[in-house]
Amino acid sequence: MEIDELLRRAAEMGVCVDRGTDLLRGKVMGTLFFEPSTRTRLSFESAMIRLGGGVIGFAEPKVASVEKGENLADTVRTVENYADVLVIRHPLEGAARLAADFASVPVINAGSGAEEHPTQAMLDLLTIHQEQGRIDGLTIAVVGDLRYGRTVHSLAYALSLYKVKLLFVAPELLRMRREVVDDISARVALEESADLAPLLSEIDVLYMTRIQKERFADMAEYEKVAGAYRLTARDLEKVKESMIVMHPLPRVDEIDHSVDRSEHAKYFKQMRYGLLLRMALLLSILG
Amino acid sequence: MEIDELLRRAAEMGVCVDRGTDLLRGKVMGTLFFEPSTRTRLSFESAMIRLGGGVIGFAEPKVASVEKGENLADTVRTVENYADVLVIRHPLEGAARLAADFASVPVINAGSGAEEHPTQAMLDLLTIHQEQGRIDGLTIAVVGDLRYGRTVHSLAYALSLYKVKLLFVAPELLRMRREVVDDISARVALEESADLAPLLSEIDVLYMTRIQKERFADMAEYEKVAGAYRLTARDLEKVKESMIVMHPLPRVDEIDHSVDRSEHAKYFKQMRYGLLLRMALLLSILG
Amino acid sequence: MEIDELLRRAAEMGVCVDRGTDLLRGKVMGTLFFEPSTRTRLSFESAMIRLGGGVIGFAEPKVASVEKGENLADTVRTVENYADVLVIRHPLEGAARLAADFASVPVINAGSGAEEHPTQAMLDLLTIHQEQGRIDGLTIAVVGDLRYGRTVHSLAYALSLYKVKLLFVAPELLRMRREVVDDISARVALEESADLAPLLSEIDVLYMTRIQKERFADMAEYEKVAGAYRLTARDLEKVKESMIVMHPLPRVDEIDHSVDRSEHAKYFKQMRYGLLLRMALLLSILG
Repeated sequence: MEIDELLRRAAEMGVCVDRGTDLLRGKVMGTLFFEPSTRTRLSFESAMIRLGGGVIGFAEPKVASVEKGENLADTVRTVENYADVLVIRHPLEGAARLAADFASVPVINAGSGAEEHPTQAMLDLLTIHQEQGRIDGLTIAVVGDLRYGRTVHSLAYALSLYKVKLLFVAPELLRMRREVVDDISARVALEESADLAPLLSEIDVLYMTRIQKERFADMAEYEKVAGAYRLTARDLEKVKESMIVMHPLPRVDEIDHSVDRSEHAKYFKQMRYGLLLRMALLLSILG
Repeated sequence: MEIDELLRRAAEMGVCVDRGTDLLRGKVMGTLFFEPSTRTRLSFESAMIRLGGGVIGFAEPKVASVEKGENLADTVRTVENYADVLVIRHPLEGAARLAADFASVPVINAGSGAEEHPTQAMLDLLTIHQEQGRIDGLTIAVVGDLRYGRTVHSLAYALSLYKVKLLFVAPELLRMRREVVDDISARVALEESADLAPLLSEIDVLYMTRIQKERFADMAEYEKVAGAYRLTARDLEKVKESMIVMHPLPRVDEIDHSVDRSEHAKYFKQMRYGLLLRMALLLSILG
Repeated sequence: MEIDELLRRAAEMGVCVDRGTDLLRGKVMGTLFFEPSTRTRLSFESAMIRLGGGVIGFAEPKVASVEKGENLADTVRTVENYADVLVIRHPLEGAARLAADFASVPVINAGSGAEEHPTQAMLDLLTIHQEQGRIDGLTIAVVGDLRYGRTVHSLAYALSLYKVKLLFVAPELLRMRREVVDDISARVALEESADLAPLLSEIDVLYMTRIQKERFADMAEYEKVAGAYRLTARDLEKVKESMIVMHPLPRVDEIDHSVDRSEHAKYFKQMRYGLLLRMALLLSILG
């Protein structure tokens, strides 16, 4: 299976970070970020530089000539002359796919519209695999905004390729869309709930996500929901010793800072896995 | 002749792109873009990185300390301490020249005011030379906004150094300025026209440019003009087999997407020549 | 003494600039600029590239995910996964220190709040030492906005470690804060004055700073003050032959352009020393 091969290679990238490599010397990556996403951009750029390659690009649309009314296809057909691989982030669904259709160099989707963020899903898998030693057999809770959260859709689909038990934990307003639930539950065991507390003791992976104020018309409702899903050090008293807490970051306050010092907290280490995953991906494409 | 030597070297740069080079290892290029121009900036940055060098700089004035009221001369005398060559883009006429007066390192003009964009002119020459095998003897039509278009002035002057026939095709409102026409026609055969269609069959190089809405007080007038100069696949039925279509990009809709798939279309390949030209330029300055 | 060792190493960095080095090959520096400061950022980035390393980062907060409400500690704990050293610029006092508390990689303070800018102070020391051959025994005037100027506080404290005579020259409104004066005068000879002219002939180092209009409620008062502290070529007729003029830049008009051509003017060369100092610093941290 291709994903497992990528995860295996990613796990080996730590050596390249420590020693430095020149495997992609002379190669250029173009980062076309039509919406800002500092952590994803820096992760890709570090990955490319760690492999000995170079980086060009832009970090936000205003800087791009998009202003002059150029369409994405033309931008891609221009920049592909300057770079060996393009990394694209775009607010619109399907933009990365469109770019790939027009490009003669490989295109990596670094987040496109509300539903696609494949390298995030892969780094999540890598984190789970490395920290738990396996993916099959785990009980994985995905918590928070399952309706609008970009990362959870890619992750849920990726996890459904393994033998896992999924728990979708969200307030009514932010439940995973019906069709996604149907799709996923056809493949793996899946339970939905609005309540996190009763589930805590059975969870192997607790994947928290941001709940955005803007989704709520009623602030009182938001406060109630946000409060109910706020993880604190006290909650960790009830969990398995091996349970890990993940988060795509940035967080607002759904994970209290008291959790940071715990051994369960893996959300910063997750960023490190993101670097390794992207190194492996770039290497498999350009190496 | 110096330009021909540069073109000859640029044509050889493709090998460096494919194999990677370290010819400028340890050198640093500073890109000072006082107005955004993504494609030109990325082209220069890729060129430098492809040659093994490094890049520092800014992509738009807001980020620069220009805000604090610093003048261009001081910025140049600061950044020249950090870089071996400066690439300057500026909204004002003569800014690149001023920078060069103050700098003790070489300065490359990457577009300065409305009239100067010398590396664009050189990459245009390179494209014509590589795609047609020569420049002398060709009939070259420059079409669109010849009054305000930054690239066409540099290009017209550059072409007038060769034995070409030039066709300036523009609506009345956007005709090339009288003094430029006089200058150029003193050196090469030159015809002006408002009508593209009757000329199509004799053209070797069709150089299209953007017509900007903002130039027109009357939108009906704009629509008429923009429509008359829109190139479509049907127009290509009447042209020489060897005719090439060029455009400095970004385009709005003066070249229909139906033209993109044609063998005549060279405007994306033109970007590739831009990379090679800038590599050759950087190498001749720093190598 | 640690600072003297750093100055000694910085003075040797010129060779690395000329020949190029690979001492930091494979290392990555993250520049986190939560407020724009082009000259400082480019100086650090050039230093890293000159040493063979790579750079990731952002140049202004808007691009950073700070927008999404992330706090500094989380940003640091994310980016430290991508970089071997972080360079932080922040509008708030103590931000660099906070970042260092959370980071597991070294953090360099590139300006934090109104009072701290340690690498500026060190490059100022380096400039004085290299241009005068020593620091001890010199009479050093610091002129302009001593109340709000970020660089002068760090510099005054750094100079107080040497055997110097300090002259603080400022208008009443912009005098150095009482507690700083007390602190400094406990260690070195210190005189305060509102008048520059009478002091000119005894000064070895004239350190000018920007006086910002925004500090004055009364524009007439500003004009009077700004005029009184404007250095021109005529003023140089009265100074020691070896006297040097420094400025952290950018300047507004407190140093007239007639001074630029003088042998006394060292404020652009000061930028060069900034590069060397930052190279030595990065090398001592990562080498």
